[in-house]
Amino acid sequence: MYELYYWPTIQGRGEFIRLLLEDVGADYVDVVRKPESEGGGIPALRNFLDAPDHAKPPFAPPILKDGDTLVTQTPLIMDYLGVRHGLAPENENERRRALELSMLLADFLVEAHDVHHPLAKEFYYEDQQDEALRRAPSFRELRIPKFCGYCEHLLQSDGFLVGGACTHPELSLFQIVEGMRYAFPKTMAMLEPDYPAVIALHDRIATRPGVAAYLASDRRIPFNEHGIFRHYPELDD
Amino acid sequence: MYELYYWPTIQGRGEFIRLLLEDVGADYVDVVRKPESEGGGIPALRNFLDAPDHAKPPFAPPILKDGDTLVTQTPLIMDYLGVRHGLAPENENERRRALELSMLLADFLVEAHDVHHPLAKEFYYEDQQDEALRRAPSFRELRIPKFCGYCEHLLQSDGFLVGGACTHPELSLFQIVEGMRYAFPKTMAMLEPDYPAVIALHDRIATRPGVAAYLASDRRIPFNEHGIFRHYPELDD
Repeated sequence: MYELYYWPTIQGRGEFIRLLLEDVGADYVDVVRKPESEGGGIPALRNFLDAPDHAKPPFAPPILKDGDTLVTQTPLIMDYLGVRHGLAPENENERRRALELSMLLADFLVEAHDVHHPLAKEFYYEDQQDEALRRAPSFRELRIPKFCGYCEHLLQSDGFLVGGACTHPELSLFQIVEGMRYAFPKTMAMLEPDYPAVIALHDRIATRPGVAAYLASDRRIPFNEHGIFRHYPELDD
Repeated sequence: MYELYYWPTIQGRGEFIRLLLEDVGADYVDVVRKPESEGGGIPALRNFLDAPDHAKPPFAPPILKDGDTLVTQTPLIMDYLGVRHGLAPENENERRRALELSMLLADFLVEAHDVHHPLAKEFYYEDQQDEALRRAPSFRELRIPKFCGYCEHLLQSDGFLVGGACTHPELSLFQIVEGMRYAFPKTMAMLEPDYPAVIALHDRIATRPGVAAYLASDRRIPFNEHGIFRHYPELDD
């Protein structure tokens, strides 16, 4: 049984991992979402980050625990699980290519976060809103098209990101589209016709049985303004 | 023979790879630094990013070409070369741990860049200097200590980041210290006494024969204000 350690009230980076675990029907516990009385809550997470019994603790969540093995960094967790559950290519070069794409999607996630927090994580959005308003046009007009255009180009040849089959970065790209539609609905409505293969992939992933059941369940935390994708209408305008 | 494709006038992300190649004495060509008349220059780089003959081109430099194999994403290039040249652990979990740390160092590099470019890559520094001045204190007072403190903790047990031997993230940490000393000399002078193991590692890497010879050569591009680590005294004060 896998244990996932991630912030309990947001989708964030952990959502990529939750989606994969749900898609393959893996046996897992979302530890920090359990009550403290059952060994969950933030103290369970802190235990990994601060506990003096870890000589080499992880730096930050998400963290996957598989028996005695700890894995951190979202793309590496996706690769680790992908290999074990048929969502990573078997060929070494293609497996690394899937990991490259997972890292690219993680980089884009940072940009999507920094649009509303260009100055510092510690400041409230309201205290960096002017700066966010200056940053948003570049994100909307240059970064989203560059990123989506690249994925579209990859998908055009055979409909798959890598290796001619569904792999873990496709789940991640699904989640990116979900998040972008939440955070930038006007921008996405305008841009999506330019990226039909990306949207087709999104729609295909949404109908996978494990994913569809998860999205309809209360295990899927709704998007909100504490997460990475936040809907501030003024940044979408 | 390896071919490295990266911007020719800055250290940037490519420098981590150059350091590894030089440390192990690998046979490599820094392609874009060659004259256009010899197949180098920016056109050689553009060929990888825009060429229609690549159905699945890389997204961005650095790119390593090893025969028919292309590798992108700095941490994956470090892992790829580390495995082939004795700078990655043989144990699977430790090898992944080295890659995790390489990804953490890459994340820190983004933060070091975004201090002077908090709004957008397309704007000049001068056009986002006020925002940079607001962002810098959080970077200096919270992010550098969090990051250096974590590395210090890892090093305290046996002096190595992972696996009880020198691995590729140690070369990367050396380069981060180099860059931070260039960009934030006052801050680093104040903070370094708190991180003796990090500095000891830096000094140990600097004396490795391949690294020392490289640093003394004209192959080492000097730090400058076009790269990732930039010295703007007002951000260091």
